[in-house]
Amino acid sequence: MDEFKILPHSTIYALIEKKKFSTLKDILVVMQEADIADLFDNLPDKTIVPLLFRLLPKEMAAMTFVEMDADNQSLLIDGFSDNELKQVVDELYVDDAVDIVEEMPANVVGRILKQADPEKRKMINDILKYPDDTAGSIMTTELLDLRPQMTVDDAFKVIRSVGIKKETVNTCYVTDKNKYLVGVTTIFDLIIAEPTQLIEEIMEHNVISVNTLEDREDVANNMAKYNFSSMPVVDAENRLVGIITVDDALDVLQEEVTDDIEIMAAVTPSAKPYLKTSVFEIYKSRIPWLLLLMVSATFTGMIISGFESALASYVVLTSFIPMLMDTGGNSGSQASVTIIRGLSIDEIEFKDIFRILWKEIRVSLLCGATLSVVTFAKLMLFDRVGLTVSVVVCTTLFLTVFIAKVVGCSLPLLAKKIGFDPAVMASPFITTIVDAVSLLVYFSIARVLLNI
Amino acid sequence: MDEFKILPHSTIYALIEKKKFSTLKDILVVMQEADIADLFDNLPDKTIVPLLFRLLPKEMAAMTFVEMDADNQSLLIDGFSDNELKQVVDELYVDDAVDIVEEMPANVVGRILKQADPEKRKMINDILKYPDDTAGSIMTTELLDLRPQMTVDDAFKVIRSVGIKKETVNTCYVTDKNKYLVGVTTIFDLIIAEPTQLIEEIMEHNVISVNTLEDREDVANNMAKYNFSSMPVVDAENRLVGIITVDDALDVLQEEVTDDIEIMAAVTPSAKPYLKTSVFEIYKSRIPWLLLLMVSATFTGMIISGFESALASYVVLTSFIPMLMDTGGNSGSQASVTIIRGLSIDEIEFKDIFRILWKEIRVSLLCGATLSVVTFAKLMLFDRVGLTVSVVVCTTLFLTVFIAKVVGCSLPLLAKKIGFDPAVMASPFITTIVDAVSLLVYFSIARVLLNI
Repeated sequence: MDEFKILPHSTIYALIEKKKFSTLKDILVVMQEADIADLFDNLPDKTIVPLLFRLLPKEMAAMTFVEMDADNQSLLIDGFSDNELKQVVDELYVDDAVDIVEEMPANVVGRILKQADPEKRKMINDILKYPDDTAGSIMTTELLDLRPQMTVDDAFKVIRSVGIKKETVNTCYVTDKNKYLVGVTTIFDLIIAEPTQLIEEIMEHNVISVNTLEDREDVANNMAKYNFSSMPVVDAENRLVGIITVDDALDVLQEEVTDDIEIMAAVTPSAKPYLKTSVFEIYKSRIPWLLLLMVSATFTGMIISGFESALASYVVLTSFIPMLMDTGGNSGSQASVTIIRGLSIDEIEFKDIFRILWKEIRVSLLCGATLSVVTFAKLMLFDRVGLTVSVVVCTTLFLTVFIAKVVGCSLPLLAKKIGFDPAVMASPFITTIVDAVSLLVYFSIARVLLNI
Repeated sequence: MDEFKILPHSTIYALIEKKKFSTLKDILVVMQEADIADLFDNLPDKTIVPLLFRLLPKEMAAMTFVEMDADNQSLLIDGFSDNELKQVVDELYVDDAVDIVEEMPANVVGRILKQADPEKRKMINDILKYPDDTAGSIMTTELLDLRPQMTVDDAFKVIRSVGIKKETVNTCYVTDKNKYLVGVTTIFDLIIAEPTQLIEEIMEHNVISVNTLEDREDVANNMAKYNFSSMPVVDAENRLVGIITVDDALDVLQEEVTDDIEIMAAVTPSAKPYLKTSVFEIYKSRIPWLLLLMVSATFTGMIISGFESALASYVVLTSFIPMLMDTGGNSGSQASVTIIRGLSIDEIEFKDIFRILWKEIRVSLLCGATLSVVTFAKLMLFDRVGLTVSVVVCTTLFLTVFIAKVVGCSLPLLAKKIGFDPAVMASPFITTIVDAVSLLVYFSIARVLLNI
């Protein structure tokens, strides 16, 4: 995919040095907007960004602007004259303009809204009022709606006259005079239809739509499931207010997956790219979880303290603590992470809890037995710790794996049921719980079998 | 999103019982194919699946078939007459047919290929020859290509006559007489153009394409980045051989994310949904990792054994082992998982290693200092373990966090560099390494400060 390569910085500086602006322009024009934005974001010397940006043709400039990071957008807006700002804002899709406005400080937002024409300003404000994680917040309100009584020929006239942007034209929604969503058709159906046919004859009447307040992740998952390239968004009265396009659904899915993975690793999610996040911001996203988990781990320490005298007489027991804790933690997180992912792609629901438990119990018996047998052989043949200690360790191992799998698969399901994010119930929390339980089991068994 | 709801099983059985087949058909026809497939997959009594399937109109039947799981597909194919099989195969998109063929046992594949018409059979065989994770394996070869010398009016005639399926028509690729990819245009550009204009006048000449052997995840990531709704696939001579549509890219991304998450939790990835995977298959995907990690953890145990006499004289040291191990593991996995995710969405590259190290070092100093101060206060005020032991524990804690972050951020980058999957370097492996190192540090410091 050589075409995706980014121009080397040295070439750019050399061309600027030699004032070869038309050459630079020629190069930029054949690049993809996302690559130009990458280039701008990575230039060490930000002062040349406005210079390069002004070389771009109007439409490309707007699309590049959308792809740039917030710092660079601010920098450009600060340097823009009102007229330049207006040119960019005029070219922006409404949903992209909203994304930008959400990232900017208040004074910049004011400038952007002032430069937008009244209709666009109203659209931006309409979208801004929806909460962050809803369908309304990711939809665009620029849409092409046809009427049931139009002919196919009329429809083409409408499409040509409004000059709607390409991304929204493949699927055409049909509304009645009250803006109620009554049908859907595709550009392909229009092309193969007779020019005199009525839209209501060729449209499909059964339209799937989502409400403005629907969860954006659910909407994106459903678009993936049904292979939709766009999804109509309706208000509480079933009036068409916007559409969500598949590229926005894809972005939502990628963001949500990153959030999930970060939560699973006990990090507070952030929308900023890692390399752009300050040390203090990273610290803030990690330290509360480390503190919380450290405090929980002290309970495990207290269990050990409680058995201190027993341990003093059998110090060899101490050396198996890491193996038991780690194996318990790993067994638990295998189960929990599998269930968390299953929940987030809607493969698993809470009602499956008994099937899942039954499955995990059988898996844990198999895993526990294998690990215990291997460990028993090792303890007897290599470590020669004696039969009783070997039995204590292997019984604990078997029970730990069992408990870990049961806890690991049920906690994410319970979290989901009571409305928490199941991703919180990943390795770190499971490990802390399983650690404490497995040590309790360990010392209890040791006490009985070793008479301590 | 009430429209997505699936029909209750009881209703279906009641309708079948009463032989209300036309009512059943009416209900199925207004459902989404993916939902019908879900319904079939979840019916406890599989014998009624063929009965319901036969109620579906031809095109819906094929699309439902594609969405069903492999077990149900097999079941249906086994029951199909050759004629019924041919009807389904005729309606399948080539890329979907390939997906099905890849899942089926050899005798079923033979039957499917026999029923496909010769042209489709050739297309299926062409795609099958590409390795599993390449662009070639996910492309479809049914495409509409225009010629530069056609007029817009000719183009519409071609579109109407070939009756190409909807999903591929939004973007039209232009090839010359040798099938070289020379341009791209959209259906929207065709609609707003004059009927007499030549395609070469309205097309864009600068087409981004991928090679058949390109990694499918890279292709999908790039489609997400550039907001492409389709991507042309060319062979080594730049001849257009297929296209990849955005819905397939979305599926690839979802599959790859699930694989990554499973690997991060030390589970061998599987394409099968959890509830459809047998206990023994789950066991096989988990036990090798548990064994491997258990063996690694015994090294940590050996470190403890080596310091057994020291521990015997200061048993209180044992009670801090879980807290030190867990905090080290958590600190390390925070760093490693963040870097792994950054690598997989191309936000981070190996060349950033020094910037990342420098960032993680500063974060680790902040986190380590916070945790140590809190722990020191707790040890002195509540646990009253004495100044020296407190210093030993807190110094170890500080160094453990430092080491964990450094190891956690560098291992995924090094894995990527030498061509391994960075996801392997997630929590379980990092934990095992950090455990051993932190205990070594712990006992070494204890030895010096406590004179044991």
